[in-house]
Amino acid sequence: MALNIKPLADRVLVEPVEAETKTASGIIIPDNAKEKPQKGKVVAVGKGTKDEAMTVKVGDTVLYGKYSGTELKLEGKDYLIMRESDIFAIV
Amino acid sequence: MALNIKPLADRVLVEPVEAETKTASGIIIPDNAKEKPQKGKVVAVGKGTKDEAMTVKVGDTVLYGKYSGTELKLEGKDYLIMRESDIFAIV
Amino acid sequence: MALNIKPLADRVLVEPVEAETKTASGIIIPDNAKEKPQKGKVVAVGKGTKDEAMTVKVGDTVLYGKYSGTELKLEGKDYLIMRESDIFAIV
Amino acid sequence: MALNIKPLADRVLVEPVEAETKTASGIIIPDNAKEKPQKGKVVAVGKGTKDEAMTVKVGDTVLYGKYSGTELKLEGKDYLIMRESDIFAIV
Amino acid sequence: MALNIKPLADRVLVEPVEAETKTASGIIIPDNAKEKPQKGKVVAVGKGTKDEAMTVKVGDTVLYGKYSGTELKLEGKDYLIMRESDIFAIV
Amino acid sequence: MALNIKPLADRVLVEPVEAETKTASGIIIPDNAKEKPQKGKVVAVGKGTKDEAMTVKVGDTVLYGKYSGTELKLEGKDYLIMRESDIFAIV
Amino acid sequence: MALNIKPLADRVLVEPVEAETKTASGIIIPDNAKEKPQKGKVVAVGKGTKDEAMTVKVGDTVLYGKYSGTELKLEGKDYLIMRESDIFAIV
Repeated sequence: MALNIKPLADRVLVEPVEAETKTASGIIIPDNAKEKPQKGKVVAVGKGTKDEAMTVKVGDTVLYGKYSGTELKLEGKDYLIMRESDIFAIV
Repeated sequence: MALNIKPLADRVLVEPVEAETKTASGIIIPDNAKEKPQKGKVVAVGKGTKDEAMTVKVGDTVLYGKYSGTELKLEGKDYLIMRESDIFAIV
Repeated sequence: MALNIKPLADRVLVEPVEAETKTASGIIIPDNAKEKPQKGKVVAVGKGTKDEAMTVKVGDTVLYGKYSGTELKLEGKDYLIMRESDIFAIV
Repeated sequence: MALNIKPLADRVLVEPVEAETKTASGIIIPDNAKEKPQKGKVVAVGKGTKDEAMTVKVGDTVLYGKYSGTELKLEGKDYLIMRESDIFAIV
Repeated sequence: MALNIKPLADRVLVEPVEAETKTASGIIIPDNAKEKPQKGKVVAVGKGTKDEAMTVKVGDTVLYGKYSGTELKLEGKDYLIMRESDIFAIV
Repeated sequence: MALNIKPLADRVLVEPVEAETKTASGIIIPDNAKEKPQKGKVVAVGKGTKDEAMTVKVGDTVLYGKYSGTELKLEGKDYLIMRESDIFAIV
Repeated sequence: MALNIKPLADRVLVEPVEAETKTASGIIIPDNAKEKPQKGKVVAVGKGTKDEAMTVKVGDTVLYGKYSGTELKLEGKDYLIMRESDIFAIV
């Protein structure tokens, strides 16, 4: 979580939380049946813009749309970078 | 209704009210004949934006468009998160 | 007409006036030949926005475009909810 | 021309001037060969908006684009309702 | 050139200059090979808008895009009416 | 280069620099293999707009996008007229 | 890196960093399997606009979207020119 990355402006780097791959009864769901995760952890936050201060902070768990953000691989791990306006809520 | 969720900006979390599945005469309408609900209860509200204060409050029953908002499953239940501008009226 | 509904912002609730289903000579026009009504009665009006005060009032008869607004069923009756900017004129 | 209608905002009610249906030599042009009229007489004018005062007045003859405005039948006669910005020129 | 027409706002009435129909060597180019003219003479100019004063004047020869403006027939002659922003340059 | 042309507003007249038609080894590349030039010389510059002063000057060599601007033939020569915002850089 | 180029406004010239063509185990990946690079080095920066000062500096390593910017060949080398808003983060 100590990534050396500075998102520009109102961008937020999010580490997606993996969707469950087992149902309650222990059945393994094949990969293409998994819904793309919509929940993630904020790992880096930009400085905001002249018009908008940032609301989310590093460490927040956030909800976002299925198609929000751009995938980015950093040190072998998948992240999403998105604008704060793509984030629906903090949970 | 005590969900731990903070919608960002002008977003509103709505719990849809189920459409009736029986007609007045007691006939069961199959699921795909049910119109998607357009009425819901507000369960969480963002802080608004610099430009817009929020009008709806938690507990309000609201009307919204058939395609408004994004579906979100929280603790096994379906919600919609939408911008206040997607809400037509309070009833 | 005493509906308990508060349209948000610059929205207007309109009760469409039925198109005539008989021609002057008394011939019944089948339903799909009826032009969708473009005339209606205002039954509820929002408070306007910071940028726009409302011009129409409850009770006004208004003209609007064929595809204006969203259909809404309230207490078994069909209404249209639209923004004031979708209304062309008061007659 | 004493229609009881108040266009909203920057809207203008225009009575189209019929295109000629006879050529100079007296030949009748079938209806689908007639170009849709682009000239009309202003019969009602809105109050303008906060941003724009109105330039055209009732009685002006105006030119407008082939696809400008929305057709409206009032007391059995066809009109077009359009925004002043759809009007090209006063002739 | 003494047309009785007042373009609204930032509109300009332009009389297109006919494209040459003969090549230098005197060969007649059939009509559909002629490029649509992009040069014209300004014959009437609007009063501008609150935001933009007009730069072109009646009598200027102007260059404009192939698909700029709307064709208008006035007293049997073809004109184009366009916004000043559709005009590239004065030559 | 002493063209009598005044671009309007933030427009710039650019004379494209021909793409090389011979490879280093002297092979002639057929015309349709030539990439459209993206480099040109500024030959005329508008006065800018209320919002933007002009940065490029006559004589600058500029880089622009493959599909930027509109082709214009002036005195038998091909030019491009584009907005300054279509210019990427001065080289 | 001493290119003589001045990007206009909020544009940034980026030299893409080549994607790895060998996997960890030394297997050569054929060219069309290589993902287009999304990481690059900033080699020139515009002066910003009235509304936005520039954040990135020459020498920064930046991340950007797969389809960001326009390819530009300068002195035989491939660069991308993009707006600063197309840059996601500095790493």
